[in-house]
Amino acid sequence: MFTPEDLSFYGALSAAQRETLRSSAREHTFERGARVYDGECTGLLLVQEGRLRAYTLSAEGREITLFRPEKGEVCLFSASCALRGISFPLFVTAETRARVLLVPADVYKRLSEESAAVGAFTAQLMAQRFSQAMWVLDEVLNKKFDARLAALLLKEEEYAGGKALKLTHEQLAAHLGTAREAVSRMLKYFEREGLVRLSRGSILLADREGLEALAKEN
Amino acid sequence: MFTPEDLSFYGALSAAQRETLRSSAREHTFERGARVYDGECTGLLLVQEGRLRAYTLSAEGREITLFRPEKGEVCLFSASCALRGISFPLFVTAETRARVLLVPADVYKRLSEESAAVGAFTAQLMAQRFSQAMWVLDEVLNKKFDARLAALLLKEEEYAGGKALKLTHEQLAAHLGTAREAVSRMLKYFEREGLVRLSRGSILLADREGLEALAKEN
Repeated sequence: MFTPEDLSFYGALSAAQRETLRSSAREHTFERGARVYDGECTGLLLVQEGRLRAYTLSAEGREITLFRPEKGEVCLFSASCALRGISFPLFVTAETRARVLLVPADVYKRLSEESAAVGAFTAQLMAQRFSQAMWVLDEVLNKKFDARLAALLLKEEEYAGGKALKLTHEQLAAHLGTAREAVSRMLKYFEREGLVRLSRGSILLADREGLEALAKEN
Repeated sequence: MFTPEDLSFYGALSAAQRETLRSSAREHTFERGARVYDGECTGLLLVQEGRLRAYTLSAEGREITLFRPEKGEVCLFSASCALRGISFPLFVTAETRARVLLVPADVYKRLSEESAAVGAFTAQLMAQRFSQAMWVLDEVLNKKFDARLAALLLKEEEYAGGKALKLTHEQLAAHLGTAREAVSRMLKYFEREGLVRLSRGSILLADREGLEALAKEN
């Protein structure tokens, strides 16, 4: 289990602060698709099981996936209300049923104000998420859309344990920050090339090697 | 003048920390085009005069401008060596001749470790820069290239105080994360439309209203 004791700043806290942290942390389960954060304060989430998805919205209302925290990872975005400086729209949903340990935002905020180690942890985590978002930007600027979609399908197959993907074109579009139509068109092209087989509500990867080669292209 | 006393965390420091901060800060002048940060530790920069430019490099080696700190703004990226978590290529250059107050990276790092207020300041600044980078991402994903170029020309004219822009197509391309050829092609189109007049090494905005209308389009 991923507990507050595993957080890098834990050792730097006083006994009272440790107690506050441990006693305030609550287990929560989010059902698949549930909203985890939409601007209303949640807190720092330690993912125990399942997967969350943090995304932003473009000016045109398109979703752009920024980060998909899994077991053993921390979701900082859900504590955005306790942080200052975040001025872009930010949402977190449960991509699968997810069990998390929640450190309430007010507790996290108070610890940040008291402890330099918590502040440093926040800054580092922010820098990491920033770095991940920069990779997204780089991909968008540089990779062709077919390569990005191929890479996403391979990643999703990994999540699905090798089974056919039960994903809508809408969901794929949200990960890539594009329109559903663009995804549908490219998937049809992939099908004609024998890379995937499409059926109602599912996508089967028919030629993994072909997709891998495509995903590597710029 | 923009001094260490103006930093939001100053009031929370001890007398000894204040003294360390004040006595370690050094004035530096960077000539136009000089490298301010390229991975070798610099420190926290308080811009007194002029303008810096922080950019990343795409996988294909293209520059993408993230932030252009001016007088009264802080450049945190130049202290990246003192921060953990930044894992994307990051560079800072002087876009104009720039006078800065430099807080050495080791001093800033030590203060971060000692003071929760400094840690919070770092986290907040990181969140702000992150937010700005998200606007860049949004623009790239959503705005058409002509609108982005028009907006950039208007911004540059503001910097130039209304005079003709002495900028190469290469420089404009770096701000937009695109290829020089794409900029040259679009500028020629702008010229045909009467929006700009091009001459060797300079760009004159001939129809500001037209460019403003274009910049607002999605």
